[in-house]
Amino acid sequence: MESMKIEYRRQWHYGGFLAQIGDQRESLILSDALTAIFKPSHSPSHSGSHPNPQSPLSSGFHRATGQTRSAAEIMSGKPIAKDIKLRVAAEISRMKAAIGRLPGLAMVLVGYREDSHAYVHIKLKACNEVGIETSIVQLPQDCTQDRLIDVVSSFNSNPSVHGIIVQLPLPEHLDEETIINFVSPEKDVDGFHPLNMGNLALRGREPLFIPCAPKACIELLLRYHVEIIGKNAVVIGRSKIAGLSTSLLLQRHHATVSTLHSFTNNPEQITRRADIVVSDVGIPNIVGCNWLMPGAVVVDMGTNSVKDPNSPRGFRTTGDVCYEEAIKVVSAITLVPGGVGPVVISMLLSNTLDSAKRAYGFT
Amino acid sequence: MESMKIEYRRQWHYGGFLAQIGDQRESLILSDALTAIFKPSHSPSHSGSHPNPQSPLSSGFHRATGQTRSAAEIMSGKPIAKDIKLRVAAEISRMKAAIGRLPGLAMVLVGYREDSHAYVHIKLKACNEVGIETSIVQLPQDCTQDRLIDVVSSFNSNPSVHGIIVQLPLPEHLDEETIINFVSPEKDVDGFHPLNMGNLALRGREPLFIPCAPKACIELLLRYHVEIIGKNAVVIGRSKIAGLSTSLLLQRHHATVSTLHSFTNNPEQITRRADIVVSDVGIPNIVGCNWLMPGAVVVDMGTNSVKDPNSPRGFRTTGDVCYEEAIKVVSAITLVPGGVGPVVISMLLSNTLDSAKRAYGFT
Repeated sequence: MESMKIEYRRQWHYGGFLAQIGDQRESLILSDALTAIFKPSHSPSHSGSHPNPQSPLSSGFHRATGQTRSAAEIMSGKPIAKDIKLRVAAEISRMKAAIGRLPGLAMVLVGYREDSHAYVHIKLKACNEVGIETSIVQLPQDCTQDRLIDVVSSFNSNPSVHGIIVQLPLPEHLDEETIINFVSPEKDVDGFHPLNMGNLALRGREPLFIPCAPKACIELLLRYHVEIIGKNAVVIGRSKIAGLSTSLLLQRHHATVSTLHSFTNNPEQITRRADIVVSDVGIPNIVGCNWLMPGAVVVDMGTNSVKDPNSPRGFRTTGDVCYEEAIKVVSAITLVPGGVGPVVISMLLSNTLDSAKRAYGFT
Repeated sequence: MESMKIEYRRQWHYGGFLAQIGDQRESLILSDALTAIFKPSHSPSHSGSHPNPQSPLSSGFHRATGQTRSAAEIMSGKPIAKDIKLRVAAEISRMKAAIGRLPGLAMVLVGYREDSHAYVHIKLKACNEVGIETSIVQLPQDCTQDRLIDVVSSFNSNPSVHGIIVQLPLPEHLDEETIINFVSPEKDVDGFHPLNMGNLALRGREPLFIPCAPKACIELLLRYHVEIIGKNAVVIGRSKIAGLSTSLLLQRHHATVSTLHSFTNNPEQITRRADIVVSDVGIPNIVGCNWLMPGAVVVDMGTNSVKDPNSPRGFRTTGDVCYEEAIKVVSAITLVPGGVGPVVISMLLSNTLDSAKRAYGFT
């Protein structure tokens, strides 16, 4: 209550609601590593200097949400991920040449889960591509909480480790909250530590790490020239991994954010008013075309396995959004797979590089 | 992305969007101190056992937002604040009798500001009423950051101090963020430390302290039997003191929250769809009746001084909402002054008691 007015350094105007000084002074969050490597062309003044002119991202089309177009743009994450990986690799080479050090990422796995091992495999492969050293500790399914904390502690104090990932979900007998609290905030490359989450929520503060999924979402939007500032954004879902943190990051980018969840009544009505729709539900095809405003931009974070007898693996991966319906209505939409996913992995590499540069004071 | 589906333990249904198991297991946040003292009658099963049958709050009217009524209910904070103070005082007496200890609140003031001193005076008076010991350190306007940190450090290590308030705003040359980070999260009765804010944002976690303004807002709604779960709530403003933290807390109570700010286009349109409107703007009368849905519930957190030659002080305090207009449309509205304000102060007392009980292991 008190000093609330002082908090509002900006001036609000009747009718116009124009933003003044206060908000303008804030910098939009992008990871230091990323901004050090390149500046996404999110303002017209940057659009001529896109770092990857061969990519489909350099069309220079300035997307205005809320307008219908003849054909929807397909937002692929692969060229973005490739571009970021190249830049991370170059930066690691520069660091190695200058100070003889490499970034190190440590992963802890408990028990065996098909999906967790698949994700770890993808991360290992990506780290290898860019030159990040990795350590993996795998503990048995019935390991004690103390043993897991021991492992995390040893990574916390290991100066060659700059990022620590505890692969979630953990078995039921382990307390995820306690374990995540134990990861040093300086090595929390997942960005799930409450200190980093709090600094993400609080405007004017910079978390050491932003979770990879929301960072990937914003990066996709910026690279595809989607305006965020002042737009109505709906985030469906509120997991810390994606939904919650994406709501917070979109708000930092001055979108007007509504967060929908399982208690929301008539979610399709609210979603239909959104310029930008981000889905983090985990139910295949839940978002149909009757949920979407013509011309909306859709970022589908769902990664759902559905049975598919025609696939050699017996299943295929699909998003939350009914792509076939949505494509007729929206102005842009991400692929699943191949949309947000690859960018998420590249953000992990970027966060790890960031952490190593901080640890070594390398700029 | 990964393990997103596991994050969604609850089941979402097409059409119905019914909440299942997962969310139901979460407890709605209310401060430990408050729930230890009383349980607000926010569910029908509690409505018969309201702790204060003499108060105007015990009408048992179960407000359904979104419905018009013949006359709006005026939500006064005074009887709620009085009730909470009585309960805090009784609990402090019990603690004193049992272990011979009292809660202690420390306040740090830098320089002289009329409004800051007025707030400190109100807090001192309230602490005195319930039996909380207080210490105040006032530093000169030009004090150094190191000196201020010294003072905070000494309160951090003083076992008789259970709550520390650094009165905001600080003079420009002091870094508010650094100072707030320095307050021990265990004594952060304002709830502004990023660790506490992060734990407020993250579902399933309990911050040690919730900021007083959002706690007061929820308490008012619960005491006046306003349903929150599943309702469309709009919070206008995003200060950490009120707007941001109220958005986070309303979301913890399973409202569908949209947060509006200076970059929002057509805020009145979005606000008109809200069952619950919380205003934290700092501009007198900015929210008129054309911003409000008939039957909406309005919590006005604005505290604005406007010139008034008829007042002996030359000014009067008014909210963000044009009360005279709103009263014709809404189903319930808070007073300004006398609405959220008194409850905020009582929440500070409650947070301080909470902290002392934790420090002494007193239950």
